[in-house]
Amino acid sequence: MSGRKTIQIALEPLFDPKSIAVIGATNSWNKWGFSTFASILSSFRGPVYPVNHSESEVLGHKAYARVTDIPAHQPVDLAVFVVPPSGVLSTMADCVEKGVRAGVIITAGFAETGEEGRKLQDQVLDIARRGPLRFIGPNCMGFWSASSNLRAFMFPLPVRPGPIAFVTQGGNVGGAVTQMAYHRGLGFHRYISCGCTADIQIEDYIEHFGRDPEVKVVLAYIEGLNDGQRFIEKVKRVSREKPVIALKPGRTEAGSKAISSHSGALAGSSDLYDSAFRKAGVIRVNTAEALIDVAIGFLNQPLPKGNNLAIITPGGSYGVISADACAALGLNVIKLSHETVAEFDKIFPPRWSRGNPVDPAGDRNFIAYMQAPEMLLKLPEVDALVFMGFDSFSNFSSVFVQISETLSDALWTLIKELAQIVPEEESQDLEFQVDWMTKLIGRIVQVFFSFFGTSDPSEVAAFGQRQIGFLKNEKIAPVLARKLQDVFRLFRGGNVENIGVLFGQVFQPLLECLVLYWIERYQKPVITTSFVGQAPVLSDLGHYAYPFSEQAALVLSKLVEYRRYLNRELGENPHAPS
Amino acid sequence: MSGRKTIQIALEPLFDPKSIAVIGATNSWNKWGFSTFASILSSFRGPVYPVNHSESEVLGHKAYARVTDIPAHQPVDLAVFVVPPSGVLSTMADCVEKGVRAGVIITAGFAETGEEGRKLQDQVLDIARRGPLRFIGPNCMGFWSASSNLRAFMFPLPVRPGPIAFVTQGGNVGGAVTQMAYHRGLGFHRYISCGCTADIQIEDYIEHFGRDPEVKVVLAYIEGLNDGQRFIEKVKRVSREKPVIALKPGRTEAGSKAISSHSGALAGSSDLYDSAFRKAGVIRVNTAEALIDVAIGFLNQPLPKGNNLAIITPGGSYGVISADACAALGLNVIKLSHETVAEFDKIFPPRWSRGNPVDPAGDRNFIAYMQAPEMLLKLPEVDALVFMGFDSFSNFSSVFVQISETLSDALWTLIKELAQIVPEEESQDLEFQVDWMTKLIGRIVQVFFSFFGTSDPSEVAAFGQRQIGFLKNEKIAPVLARKLQDVFRLFRGGNVENIGVLFGQVFQPLLECLVLYWIERYQKPVITTSFVGQAPVLSDLGHYAYPFSEQAALVLSKLVEYRRYLNRELGENPHAPS
Repeated sequence: MSGRKTIQIALEPLFDPKSIAVIGATNSWNKWGFSTFASILSSFRGPVYPVNHSESEVLGHKAYARVTDIPAHQPVDLAVFVVPPSGVLSTMADCVEKGVRAGVIITAGFAETGEEGRKLQDQVLDIARRGPLRFIGPNCMGFWSASSNLRAFMFPLPVRPGPIAFVTQGGNVGGAVTQMAYHRGLGFHRYISCGCTADIQIEDYIEHFGRDPEVKVVLAYIEGLNDGQRFIEKVKRVSREKPVIALKPGRTEAGSKAISSHSGALAGSSDLYDSAFRKAGVIRVNTAEALIDVAIGFLNQPLPKGNNLAIITPGGSYGVISADACAALGLNVIKLSHETVAEFDKIFPPRWSRGNPVDPAGDRNFIAYMQAPEMLLKLPEVDALVFMGFDSFSNFSSVFVQISETLSDALWTLIKELAQIVPEEESQDLEFQVDWMTKLIGRIVQVFFSFFGTSDPSEVAAFGQRQIGFLKNEKIAPVLARKLQDVFRLFRGGNVENIGVLFGQVFQPLLECLVLYWIERYQKPVITTSFVGQAPVLSDLGHYAYPFSEQAALVLSKLVEYRRYLNRELGENPHAPS
Repeated sequence: MSGRKTIQIALEPLFDPKSIAVIGATNSWNKWGFSTFASILSSFRGPVYPVNHSESEVLGHKAYARVTDIPAHQPVDLAVFVVPPSGVLSTMADCVEKGVRAGVIITAGFAETGEEGRKLQDQVLDIARRGPLRFIGPNCMGFWSASSNLRAFMFPLPVRPGPIAFVTQGGNVGGAVTQMAYHRGLGFHRYISCGCTADIQIEDYIEHFGRDPEVKVVLAYIEGLNDGQRFIEKVKRVSREKPVIALKPGRTEAGSKAISSHSGALAGSSDLYDSAFRKAGVIRVNTAEALIDVAIGFLNQPLPKGNNLAIITPGGSYGVISADACAALGLNVIKLSHETVAEFDKIFPPRWSRGNPVDPAGDRNFIAYMQAPEMLLKLPEVDALVFMGFDSFSNFSSVFVQISETLSDALWTLIKELAQIVPEEESQDLEFQVDWMTKLIGRIVQVFFSFFGTSDPSEVAAFGQRQIGFLKNEKIAPVLARKLQDVFRLFRGGNVENIGVLFGQVFQPLLECLVLYWIERYQKPVITTSFVGQAPVLSDLGHYAYPFSEQAALVLSKLVEYRRYLNRELGENPHAPS
């Protein structure tokens, strides 16, 4: 396909430049030209040329009055513009003359300010096309490209590499979303604040992301589109292969008005966008946080066959809240069959909920609780599972040791014993690793349940045996081994304040592996939630427990929505998106 | 009023017991009787008696086979029941015989399990009434009372003292809400997991909270009420004096079904509850997090006169999102008058939004940004303000120093200079404190703006002068002084990894004081939001920046709702609730 070639090649000097000129770079701390230049220097490793009329040297780099003054044997791939709007036209002409092929115009004061600004913008575009020089902006915050480690931002936003690509029509929302992702340990392959989209359109970026195998999930913040039909055509091809999730504000008059003064975009009716997104296969969300929540879901969960859901909760009321949240979003909290109820009757006390949500009502036999997920996942009528109170087990120990010295002492003794099992050296020998982890897990399971739950030894042994199934998984075992060795390194280093917290850190990855194992074995989503109300960090194992039921419900509903879209477009058995 | 006397006196032995018996206390780690007993011991300072058939001593305390075996000269005020349901009837009879006046029945397996359980519950109630012994539960997680430092929970939930009272029909939701509050630095005067409410009803607790001057905000999680009319009558009297905020699930069929199997309550139609809450003046929310968000708003903000709102944002797109969120909840994002636009034209660059949300569109003159709030608050047509990007200023420095050694060095020099101004010793002398803080702030403002914004010295000096107005406030100044001294103690201790972060810690409380000063001066809510997407800790100064616009909008809409309720009930100029 020539189309495929075109967009990937056209944007190559943008995302993988060999050299960069920063027009407006300055030593003055209180100007964006300082922070933009410093931000680029802090990451990018190729040559960077400051361009400035009146400074001969910027942060130790020789400066040039014009881009055309940079010697001919030093070509420039990308130009970053941080000059006042009046200076963009002439410097753009210089760039075209120099043969620069890509640009990002951070400068504001173009189409978003009215007719005059739009004219200026059109003139800049005309000149750039003579290159052609393809550019981001104007009126944007810049961009990040993981493949060239380039933070071409107007200030040094923290961002890490990862599988997400994100284009935003608002630098402000973009900054918030990337910061949120950063704190949650989530990374981006590309992040673009696209501003007024004079040249490259939102759908062009999405097309580019669609063809990049490094990108697994596409995010977008869209205030308004220049050409809805073009968007639908281009994005439709992408959404068949990977999920495209968009935040589109302007549901209210106040929001629409704010859009027109911000990006100068025509907000359009919210219904119109709903319809365009449906045609393009775009999944719409309503908040910045939902972009991240849903992205995490798509990265770590398989798509469910349908909307039939089971919920398991360690307590009744959160089951109620969860059922409400799921049903309100069109998920079907299924009625359990008599057979299933009878199965649970065998393992739970008589006071259990005897329905869905499955709630053992404070049963202290946690083994039963940990058996329940597989009993539900194996049912053909269950398409997905919400597993609540995921943090409870690891929190339990940290909270409990505070109230009892005997318990705390016992836990110290246990951890010392466990430290004998965990080798200090790392190893590539999978069999060796599985061997010590099997011993470790057997012992932990045994002690945990005698501390905090049932103490029936045969029940515990059988449970331990069942749960080490995931150790045979070649993807999970090495990561788990490294994780456990890290925790015990901490212990050996003597920096342990609360032994209960440390025990939680040992226990937590085991639980995470269990969830990953369930997902892989049954190929159904298992969404976990915690009760602490704080967004956690995505674990190395790719596990994330959502702090609120409402988030779990939203994520599941979007997985279902996307699966249905694929079924409609590609038939019932689509090639599973990677 | 005799009614007033009755409920306060009736619940005194519950919330302020002099001695406690724990029926079912045990040394077995894997039973709730262990963790309940240990939880009580970890906090309560009066005598605690374990009651157990078969153990002669529990965690070092002499145990009694029956409550009636506790010697007569050792009276018991409160009994905590953690025995199987079959054991509650006889032990309750013992308690009545012993003269115990209050109880909490943690044991589950009563009305929530069906007809047989309900009968047992009725029998227990009959016996208790002979005392009378007033009790919480059955089927609950216990309670917290700050006045007696009593954590009578089935496991040691972390909770701190504070101005909130909370009654929950779900221990699970209660635990999540209290944990969330704990992480955010928010405390409770009372927290009650009320279970099946056999004896004391939800409205009784709320009546009690209403009459307790320590309680400023009342929270409730309600699955179903036994007597709606009684609830309305009792709660109506409370909501006239302090806000009562309730989470009521059961909006969907799945949620209602889950309620009946959990608490055995009749969920009732959601509309019916809406109408009852409206009559009782109860503010309804739909999520657990909203309970906390809204409570923080009521604790720290005055009530707005109406729903007319101004928004100020450092970037356009988050202004769009915020306007959408506010308008969707019935808040009026006002149109600015020509006069106001002209005022802002004087201080902002031409590209500013020229409307509400007020967005200076990336202007680096932060002085103008910090002037804007007062320009809006002084307008009679503005009832409340949303101030966005509150964290940006203090984050800015920490992010900036990473990219420039020169900047980092300059900041070290500055902090050393500032440390000369801040005295090491604490002082009660307000004048002395105001004196050094004036010097400190003057210097910080000067340097901050030359680093990160405008460097016009006269503009900066005038700004510094204007902003130290809050130092004259006798409530704010001593807290600020302590806070600043803490930060510099950290610096002197040499434990500073990132000088930018430290500078942010100096800058942050200054900004918080500024917001408090605006609130006090204009008596209008000023809700701040951050862009990091993480719930922060409530500051000592009583400031809280919400991570998301949607939260700010919700809180403001609830403040407006409550003000309107008070206006309807008490006339246009109600005595402001404390």
